[in-house]
Amino acid sequence: MFHERPKFPRGFRCASRNVGLKPKAKDLTLFASEVDAAAAAVFTRNHFPGAPVILGRETIRGGQLRAIIANSKVSNVATGAPGLENARRMAASAASELGTSPDRVLVSSTGVIGVPLPIDIIEHGTKGMASELQDDPLVGAEGIMTTDTHAKALSMSVGDATITWVAKGSGMIEPNMATMLVYIFTDAAFDAPSLDALLRTAVHVSFNMLSVDSDTSTSDTCAILANGLAGGVETGAFGKALTAGCIRMTEILARDGEGAKHLLRANVHAAANDADARRVAKSLINSPLVKTMIFGADPNVGRLLMAIGKCFDCEIRADATDVSINGFGVVRGGQRLDFDDATVRKTLTEEVVDLDVHLGVGTASATAYGCDLTQGYIDENSAYYSS
Amino acid sequence: MFHERPKFPRGFRCASRNVGLKPKAKDLTLFASEVDAAAAAVFTRNHFPGAPVILGRETIRGGQLRAIIANSKVSNVATGAPGLENARRMAASAASELGTSPDRVLVSSTGVIGVPLPIDIIEHGTKGMASELQDDPLVGAEGIMTTDTHAKALSMSVGDATITWVAKGSGMIEPNMATMLVYIFTDAAFDAPSLDALLRTAVHVSFNMLSVDSDTSTSDTCAILANGLAGGVETGAFGKALTAGCIRMTEILARDGEGAKHLLRANVHAAANDADARRVAKSLINSPLVKTMIFGADPNVGRLLMAIGKCFDCEIRADATDVSINGFGVVRGGQRLDFDDATVRKTLTEEVVDLDVHLGVGTASATAYGCDLTQGYIDENSAYYSS
Repeated sequence: MFHERPKFPRGFRCASRNVGLKPKAKDLTLFASEVDAAAAAVFTRNHFPGAPVILGRETIRGGQLRAIIANSKVSNVATGAPGLENARRMAASAASELGTSPDRVLVSSTGVIGVPLPIDIIEHGTKGMASELQDDPLVGAEGIMTTDTHAKALSMSVGDATITWVAKGSGMIEPNMATMLVYIFTDAAFDAPSLDALLRTAVHVSFNMLSVDSDTSTSDTCAILANGLAGGVETGAFGKALTAGCIRMTEILARDGEGAKHLLRANVHAAANDADARRVAKSLINSPLVKTMIFGADPNVGRLLMAIGKCFDCEIRADATDVSINGFGVVRGGQRLDFDDATVRKTLTEEVVDLDVHLGVGTASATAYGCDLTQGYIDENSAYYSS
Repeated sequence: MFHERPKFPRGFRCASRNVGLKPKAKDLTLFASEVDAAAAAVFTRNHFPGAPVILGRETIRGGQLRAIIANSKVSNVATGAPGLENARRMAASAASELGTSPDRVLVSSTGVIGVPLPIDIIEHGTKGMASELQDDPLVGAEGIMTTDTHAKALSMSVGDATITWVAKGSGMIEPNMATMLVYIFTDAAFDAPSLDALLRTAVHVSFNMLSVDSDTSTSDTCAILANGLAGGVETGAFGKALTAGCIRMTEILARDGEGAKHLLRANVHAAANDADARRVAKSLINSPLVKTMIFGADPNVGRLLMAIGKCFDCEIRADATDVSINGFGVVRGGQRLDFDDATVRKTLTEEVVDLDVHLGVGTASATAYGCDLTQGYIDENSAYYSS
């Protein structure tokens, strides 16, 4: 279903460079469409949005984008009016390089909060990038990595069109959105309002159900650009593909959570309503005691009940609650089953761990995506600023 | 204000033993009053309360207690009808030993979830404990320790009366309540409804503002017993002392959080209302990125804004938000100040770290109590069940 090697839809290309924000690694990426693309985006709900998010909300109102410019290392958050001015200069620099106007350029910055953006370095570094645009989405993904251990891109075909996802994100991730940056490119033809509706539907069950550490970044951005070069595509099929790819990218981001060794999926079934299902699923993947239990492959299943039960305002009936781990039943009717310890211990060592919870009180379901909590997370985050 | 060495109020004593639940350490504690005491208690809000909590809610309706019996190692949670029967047998065994009735005995169990309580061992082990009752509250505290690194007790005088706190708790702690067990003893005279009101007022600003890991135990219990042997005490003075002691014990529990090196206090001022103040304070002490920043003594203050800003539903004005760390200003009007890095780095190494947040939108305030997140927490919790 996904292409073996990710590729761009018609008319999209990218370039990335080291411009000196980081010692050696790539730190600036430019994505460009040959023609104006209809566009939609969702941003962080954090009360301290970064300057690029403030500007992005303004830009996306136009419903049209030609390019995205994004840097890593410095997030341009908590930088006040000068920060916003720097974000505008960053858009202008990409626009000038590509021969478009600044209001067609989406800007993202990810990295440390509260440090002034070195805008002179970025303006200087952007010059000449138009001549380096090429066809590999992974090249663009490289320039936006922070603590990611690998570049992240996916693509798939829908009818004659292609959809391509390029993303970064590893920590400070509980989207609504998280520092998660996700850019989606397609050559299918949709107008901006339709794209917006399709994007929100897909994000609801994918990136908004992702949490690495329950911390919501000030910079999260998920944008989609549709340049129409492949013509019309049936909306139902496109929406289905868009959601599938967003879920797959969510899993990739969760698995690459800081220090993570496992992808953790909490699948909640038979909940009273959608909100309860989402709440319980999120509670499981966010619980430090569940996350350390997965890391230790230790079948201390009482912690699963604890994490379900602490959703105080949800409809939960202890005697109706069943839980299984990778298909092995461990709790029935709220009581621990006398399961084979070695079997469950073994399945907990698998790279993907599925927790299935049947609440037995309704028909709603939801899945949340997370990872285990390891010493690696502590190591990375006790000295991130200094490193 | 607190006694240098904790002591019991008149008429209270305790005993503790190793009865064989743990290899060597004490695992069973009995607290007793010479006479019936008026009593009140609050319990976990988790949907999967342990059998002792189910029984305790029934017992406390009587408003009178003579004793508390508590074991560590096994929590008697997720054990169904047999678990409840075992909790009743545990109450009966203490009642028989002390010559009172089972409905005057509060039962607690703390430890692993989902394992049957070895009730025969407990019944056998209780025999003869009445003859070992003695005057040191720390002896009782020893028998209820799980991952605690030290026994926890406090006492202070109020008029002619004494108040004594005995507690345990180190992980799975976000009370509402947490596995936190707190027993408060006094020889002041109050009726059960007054005690209940005083207890709820004190818990609201103390144990319910404590979080080690955001995980809410299935066994939390906080009970107060007033045997009246010191006669009446002025309610205002008593309530003030009760709250002060509960806050101090909250700090002791937070500082002894699993793997913790620091006590973290988040003091939120000038919030729109009490709920917002509590929410923002809790968000700060629960944020893995804030907690790892404290552990690393790394002044990555953007994380403080992130944690404040992710309280989506609270009234927060970025340009009105000021933050200081141990009195050193680091954020003003939502922007990072150009503070002296070495000074802030140094103050972050102190054992107690105070984060003061002025939201600038109202007059409400709240303090939450937590700790840093270290490799020690991961080590303890990735193999707790097996150990």
